[in-house]
This record gives sequence, C-alpha cells and structure tokens, in this order.
Amino acid sequence: MQKMILKFDNAAIVASASVVGKDEHDGPLGEYFDLSDPTDKFGMNTWELAESEMQRLAFNTSLAKLARDERDVDALFAGDLLNQCVSSAYGLLNFDIPYFGLYGACSTAVEGIALASAMVNAGYFGTAAAVTSSHYCAAERQYRTPIEYGAQRSPTAQWTVTGAGAFMICPEGRVRVREALVGIVVEMGISDASNMGAAMAPAAADTLKRYFSESRRSPDEFDMIVTGDLGREGGDILCELLLSEGIDIRKNHRDCGVMIYDLERQDKHAGGSGCGCSAVVLASYLIPRLERGELRNILVVGTGAMMSPASIQQGQAIPAIAHLIALSSEEGGI
Amino acid sequence: MQKMILKFDNAAIVASASVVGKDEHDGPLGEYFDLSDPTDKFGMNTWELAESEMQRLAFNTSLAKLARDERDVDALFAGDLLNQCVSSAYGLLNFDIPYFGLYGACSTAVEGIALASAMVNAGYFGTAAAVTSSHYCAAERQYRTPIEYGAQRSPTAQWTVTGAGAFMICPEGRVRVREALVGIVVEMGISDASNMGAAMAPAAADTLKRYFSESRRSPDEFDMIVTGDLGREGGDILCELLLSEGIDIRKNHRDCGVMIYDLERQDKHAGGSGCGCSAVVLASYLIPRLERGELRNILVVGTGAMMSPASIQQGQAIPAIAHLIALSSEEGGI
Repeated sequence: MQKMILKFDNAAIVASASVVGKDEHDGPLGEYFDLSDPTDKFGMNTWELAESEMQRLAFNTSLAKLARDERDVDALFAGDLLNQCVSSAYGLLNFDIPYFGLYGACSTAVEGIALASAMVNAGYFGTAAAVTSSHYCAAERQYRTPIEYGAQRSPTAQWTVTGAGAFMICPEGRVRVREALVGIVVEMGISDASNMGAAMAPAAADTLKRYFSESRRSPDEFDMIVTGDLGREGGDILCELLLSEGIDIRKNHRDCGVMIYDLERQDKHAGGSGCGCSAVVLASYLIPRLERGELRNILVVGTGAMMSPASIQQGQAIPAIAHLIALSSEEGGI
Repeated sequence: MQKMILKFDNAAIVASASVVGKDEHDGPLGEYFDLSDPTDKFGMNTWELAESEMQRLAFNTSLAKLARDERDVDALFAGDLLNQCVSSAYGLLNFDIPYFGLYGACSTAVEGIALASAMVNAGYFGTAAAVTSSHYCAAERQYRTPIEYGAQRSPTAQWTVTGAGAFMICPEGRVRVREALVGIVVEMGISDASNMGAAMAPAAADTLKRYFSESRRSPDEFDMIVTGDLGREGGDILCELLLSEGIDIRKNHRDCGVMIYDLERQDKHAGGSGCGCSAVVLASYLIPRLERGELRNILVVGTGAMMSPASIQQGQAIPAIAHLIALSSEEGGI
C-alpha cells in the first residue's frame, strides 16, 4: 500500500480563536468561544459581510493571543462555503499576507491546518494561519432557501454553524500537529442535500480506515476521535461502516456537530455542520484541552460535502471528502 | 522586508496536458492543444458535467504522457470557477488520489503548481498533480446570464476559456519550477464584473513588484513575463502601473488571454479569461517551448478575480490575487 500519512516534527498550533453566533453561544460549549454577537450580524448589513467580519475577528483575535501583528504571519490558508469563497477573500482582504484560497467544504479547517503545518514543517514559513467560517443565514439562502421562507426541515437535516475559527501554526508549541492524512473524494450515491451526514460518513470511514491501516495504531490509542460535522445520523453510519471493517471507534468517537448544540433543547435536528462547526469546536474547546494536557492524543477528521445547488438540481450524487490530522499535547505523543 | 519567495531545488513539471473547446481550437494556438470537441459538450448533457469531463480527460492525458497510472500520483491540487468547485470534485472523483481542493479563481493553475511544487520539493510527495478548468457556457450562466439570452457584452468584457489543464510535478525534470511567490489579496475599488482585467491588474503589479524587489532581478532576465488572463485592457494597466514604479515589462510581457484568441477575427472583446485560460496556454504552448529550450526562463503570474455574483449584486468591489511561479528550461537557470 502507498504511504500516505504526512509526518511533521516541527508543526504546532500556537494560538487559536473562535467567533460564533447566538445559537452557538447558547449551546453546551457556549462559554468557551472567544467572541459572539446575539444578532448574528456583527455590525454588517448583509449575512455575507457578517461572515467575512467573523473571519476578520477570528484572525485578529488569534493574532492578539499570540501577541503578534500581521507582519509576523507569512501565509494564510483560508476558505469557506459561500460561492467563490467570498467570506475569506473579503474577510482577510485588509491583511497584507500571502493568501492560499482553499475549497474543502466543511473540511476546510482541517485542510488548512494540514497544509499550513506541512509548509511550516518544511521550513517555508515561520508562522502560517488557517482560517475558515460559515454562517447559517448566508448558507441557507445559498444552498437551500432564504430563512424568511420558514421551510420545514427534515429530521436528517443539519444546521449550518454560524462561526469562524483561526489557527496559528509555528514550528514549536504545546499542541503538536504530528500527522496529516489527505482525503480522497468519495461518492456513494447519496443525492439528498438534507442528509449530508450520510454522504460524508463513507469519506470519513475511508480516511480513518486508511489511517489505522497505514499507522498500525488502534482507536484506543487516542483519547478522542473527532469528526467535523457528520451529525447524529452520519456519526452512527460512520461507526457502523468502520465496525464492519473490524474497527471499533464507538467508545471514543465524538462529532463537533453533535457537541456544539443541545440537539433536543435547541431543535437542531441531526446537529451542526458547516466550515465553522469543526473550526470553532477545535479552536476553543479541543485545543485548549490539549494545551492543558487534559487530552493527550486526538484525531480530528474534517468532513466535507462538495456538491453545489446546481449539481443537486441536476440530479448528481454528493461527492464527499475527509481530511485527518493527529494532534498531541506536550505530554502526549503517538 | 519580509522574505516571501519560496525556492525549490527539487520540483519540475514533467508532463502537462490540455483539453479545449471549439473557439480555443480555432484560435492562434489551436494546433498545440491535446484534445478538443467542436460541440464543447464532451459527450455530456450539462455544461457543468462537460467541464468535469474536461478535467478528467486532461488529467488522464497527462498521466498517459508520463506513462504512469493513477496509483503513481500521490496528491491532486485542483479547483475551478464553478460554485463549490464542482468541476474538480466530480471530474476527479474516479481517481483514488488524495485531493486538496483550491479556490484561486483564475489563478488556480499557478496556485496549484506552486503548492504541488512546494510539497514535492519538501519530499512529502513523489508525484503531485495540479488540475483546473473553466467552461464558457457554465461560467456565463453562473456569473452573468445564460448564453441563450444573447446579452450584449461590453468592450472590456473577457471571454471565459473553455479549457482544462493538468500538470504533473516530480522532483526531477526538464522544466524546473524554481520559485513561487504567493499573492496577496488586493482590492482597488473596481466593482464592474465586465472589467475584471482592471480589477486584477493591481494584484499582478503588486506580486511582480514584490518579486523584482526581493529577487533583485530585472525583467530583462526573463524571456517572457506571462500573465494569466488580464486581457488587453488589464495587460495595459499592469504595464502602466509597473512603469510608474520604474519597472518596465512592456518588451517581454504577454498575456494568455490575448494569446489564446485572435481577438478581432474571433470577436473576443478584451480577450480570454477563466481558470482554463492560463492552464491550457501554459500546458500546451509555454511548457513545451521550455522543454525544447526555446524559452529558458519565464515568469508566470496567475491572476484571479475573487468576487461572486452575490458580492457584485451587493455592490462590493472585486478582490483580486496574483500568484507567481518562475520556470526554467534545463539550459536556463536564474
């Protein structure tokens, strides 16, 4: 089998920041996020500009935590869900920093951290940042229907997280990015855009299967195996798919889309989704726990559904992807 | 000044391939392209799937030229202009290769070659591919109006190239990727989506100015300084902007958007644009000339306008970016 796991000795997440909307702040992880706005507008007069502003705020906050200014950052890796990734282009426009635009749908946070880590580990950059976002109102009107229509949602539907996350990568630091495994595009015939968890689960299963096979590690060696936004539906499918291959992750699997909301109380159906979902949970909940040594080794699998409204209207099935990173605390080390 | 030029000792373009539509085949470079279809449909029943099929064909043709199969390619770097980059996700879905999704608008070919070269040079991958595309009919209906409407075009408007290009990067080969300079997002107040050349020219000027300043080289040291798709309008603006900074590229500046069509005979207004524009000119005209030693050192500046139809409708100006790569023949070497 081809060796596909990228290994890094000199890549660490040295700062991270999150910006969220009202519902995310009201959820079980609400207290951990850095900034939030109860109007979801962030002072802007369109949802798209609100999302851009969230990226700007997240990046600025991560700079502040690092006590650096923009001149110390050598590269940005950014992307989002809006057409032509405008949240990123407009949100980060004011920073004079070389910019790599990415499109990984909801896997963008992990794609960005993986690429930034690879480039820092290779010595190209001293500090690189990964930034991403999603906004419920901007995503709904682009992908489905404007929220003003009050459309009925199916039980398998997910709720796009209003959130932006930023991550600063340097060669040295307490939260190491030890490995990355890049996803392969997978399509298993699901064409229901209200069931993205089912479309993405096979991609996550493929990546995790390749990871455990090549690394010869077992799920038990990780405190947590975190997926980005499979939601309740997709998470169950992932566990079943892997179990049928003899890999049992049920004990330590968590999904950011399930963690970020109280699904019953907040009526969030199958859970959260969107680029911002894994980004803010990682930035403000998981990374601080790794910093404090409460978690030692975790796998984070960013999952993305790469359809467009046009491809769905044309009857195409949903292609999905899942990128993986292995993170360790100072005390950890797989 | 911060050092921003990435330098590579072990990165080369070892194969490249292009697929184009009817008008590109009828243009001055028509004889050089690998494949074309006079219907622009490539056997598909939507323009979007036709564009995906072009990516598949371009990648397959580059594999065939290299006499390799997909198992020998360690990573794909791909993106395009369609919403959520569906041409790339669907076009490359059948290949079981780790996939990095990019969004650089029309700069995607150069962004992909730069990243693939950096990752190969660092030893992460033995072979990486960069693939991109655009399709006139798919782009028109997404960005402006469906072609069936027969809308009048302004003289500064550009014509999206129907084309896909694929590039194979390995550590050794005759066409070296020696340097890359990553673009910074620039916005100078242009909000007219029919004048993208004017929006992108300042980004190209910024990148070239940074390149000549940091490298201490002069434009005369290059046989050609090629921009991606500024067109006639944007190309003139670029030369003027640089001249006002004391940098004269007028003698050796060429633009892929001007080269690919006979602007008068084919009635292409300000010239070609789109991800496919620089990709196919580079893949089938410039790289073969470097291989044969007819060109020794060239700079290629991929230019991208990163607006969306929604951002234009909301009155936002167009953010633009320009990524640069320095290519050398075996006999060259800057």
